[in-house]
Amino acid sequence: MIITCSREQLLEAVLNVQRAVSSKSSIPALQGILLKAKQNSIFLCGYDAEMLGMTTEIEAEVTQTGTIVLSAKLFGDIVRRLPDERVHMETDDKNMTTIRSGQSNFSIVGIPAEEYPELPTVSGERGIRISNLVLKNMIHQTIFAVAESDAKPIHTGTLFEIGSGKIRLVSVDGYRLAMREEMVNSDEQGLSFVVPGKALQEVSKLLPENDENCELQIGSRHILFIVGRYTVIARLLEGEFLDYRSAIPQKSSSTVILKTSEFISSVERVSLLITDRLKSPIRCIFDEDTVRLSSYTPIGRASDQFPAKLVGNPVEMGFNNHYLLDALRNAEGDQIKLELNGSLSPMKVLPMEGNSFLFLVLPVRLKSEAG
Amino acid sequence: MIITCSREQLLEAVLNVQRAVSSKSSIPALQGILLKAKQNSIFLCGYDAEMLGMTTEIEAEVTQTGTIVLSAKLFGDIVRRLPDERVHMETDDKNMTTIRSGQSNFSIVGIPAEEYPELPTVSGERGIRISNLVLKNMIHQTIFAVAESDAKPIHTGTLFEIGSGKIRLVSVDGYRLAMREEMVNSDEQGLSFVVPGKALQEVSKLLPENDENCELQIGSRHILFIVGRYTVIARLLEGEFLDYRSAIPQKSSSTVILKTSEFISSVERVSLLITDRLKSPIRCIFDEDTVRLSSYTPIGRASDQFPAKLVGNPVEMGFNNHYLLDALRNAEGDQIKLELNGSLSPMKVLPMEGNSFLFLVLPVRLKSEAG
Repeated sequence: MIITCSREQLLEAVLNVQRAVSSKSSIPALQGILLKAKQNSIFLCGYDAEMLGMTTEIEAEVTQTGTIVLSAKLFGDIVRRLPDERVHMETDDKNMTTIRSGQSNFSIVGIPAEEYPELPTVSGERGIRISNLVLKNMIHQTIFAVAESDAKPIHTGTLFEIGSGKIRLVSVDGYRLAMREEMVNSDEQGLSFVVPGKALQEVSKLLPENDENCELQIGSRHILFIVGRYTVIARLLEGEFLDYRSAIPQKSSSTVILKTSEFISSVERVSLLITDRLKSPIRCIFDEDTVRLSSYTPIGRASDQFPAKLVGNPVEMGFNNHYLLDALRNAEGDQIKLELNGSLSPMKVLPMEGNSFLFLVLPVRLKSEAG
Repeated sequence: MIITCSREQLLEAVLNVQRAVSSKSSIPALQGILLKAKQNSIFLCGYDAEMLGMTTEIEAEVTQTGTIVLSAKLFGDIVRRLPDERVHMETDDKNMTTIRSGQSNFSIVGIPAEEYPELPTVSGERGIRISNLVLKNMIHQTIFAVAESDAKPIHTGTLFEIGSGKIRLVSVDGYRLAMREEMVNSDEQGLSFVVPGKALQEVSKLLPENDENCELQIGSRHILFIVGRYTVIARLLEGEFLDYRSAIPQKSSSTVILKTSEFISSVERVSLLITDRLKSPIRCIFDEDTVRLSSYTPIGRASDQFPAKLVGNPVEMGFNNHYLLDALRNAEGDQIKLELNGSLSPMKVLPMEGNSFLFLVLPVRLKSEAG
């Protein structure tokens, strides 16, 4: 392999694909980035051989085609610090790879491409196109509710449902639920699959904040996200996703309208006494014109309040402070609407208008207030 | 204790004095900040009971004088998040302390001030005044060479020498030496003491970048730094500091003039193959018009070069990359002057003119170049 290419393009490509590389794999090739010099370009690939792969292609002057696998971290560090705009690379028949730029010269030991695993192929018969920015926001506003524990592996991913001109993303972890819905220009019907949270995080980082479209191609076991010059391949999760429709309360006894930022500040304040060791629910009293919050742990007591508009019955509920904050911080809009149905029914967090998002936060049972 | 004060002033004071608090003390009071409400002010104090204490005073309306010790971390977190410009605090006879601001209300358990240790007193018969900015720079440019290991406790501090209208700071750790010298308006003669690096770090953070003066008062066992409204008290280190004068080579066989930033970039590049596990010295060849650098570890080989002006004999030397970088990054000026005296004598790093700083970096013995 003998190539010359732009340092800037190479760096961008390496920094992106190395995010799909598992830094702790016991197989040395999997800690590397695969480079394939083709006619006029270099193909780069990072893959963890389990969940996630990322590929891209950049322009290059290719004097001799060939392949090599280079340590993702070391190669990235080197390219970042090269002094010149152009980079020249050469690989010899012992996989020794020379990287040259200006007066700088690196020779590093590569791994033959034969030791690198094949990426799965995706049939790609079904799929949609969707705006980069819309998908980025949808991922961002649902990924926080993805389960961290492996207790139910299917819930470490986000459910995608596509049909009737709509796309819906749903994450649940047993304590909360996040749902986002948007219109999409597609004839697909009844398309439903679950994408690992880790893969969505990487897709979200790749997605630029613009109105151009990315493409999703869905196979039987994998999904491709095509974002500009990048392709992300992710394994779909298998199993039975929670029947989220039946988890969402249909009726409510009280509606509260409040300023999102005031609720967040208040929760942050009364959370100050709560630590991993000193747990306490946040007690919320949704009253006529006021929301009153309090917490109580062995180190002390905190209380706070802010104005709100209640329609219906006053409600007193307890929440885990982290779950409450996650939902509030991901709610769009200066104001939000809460729908409540007594102390023990999940709280719905909704936009003031429409139904672009719906978050559920499960309550925590409160003991009666101690002295 | 019943007081009302400005949130902003209280926050600044708490954030500063809490840096002297040892977060891991087994004595609960030492994890706290001491507050003393006096006539028209509150005195705040953080102290680790070993090395370092910090005190300050802020204005307050004091309805009832008194004292309390509050958890430094929790109190800081609370004050940071209080919603209003004014803070009201009240302590009851069971040390329960109420902190109120706007609609927010915290009650936290305090510790009686009787459990808080006394700060040492400093006679303060000797001392100097020096510009905040000058002292800040002097500390910054010598502290990197303070020893991290406790092998020779005296070298975990910086030597101050004051006399003949000059102040000199010297740090050494067995591998390098950093010396800074400035003029100072003082009649002191032969004043010499060693201040712990940790204390100097905190003093440096307190020092604003202006021309106003701070004050150093030196006692037999402690030193006071008076910086604006803050006082830092530090224990002086005892023991015999290295005879640094005899460690500095008096003659040199070669002088090199080069651009600091080019040397730094080159060292950073050839350091990329060096890790904690894969060690290698950096080989530097100071030649007529060029400095050539290289490194060699089991993962590969790196080389780089940049222009320089040599007067005298060419020299080939090995360095530890971290020690070399520390010295270069702390050298002021676009260009620096190196004085060399063969492969095994320490390298002197000097400013182009004057002698405001002098860094020594000890060489590492090089094996003959492998294949």
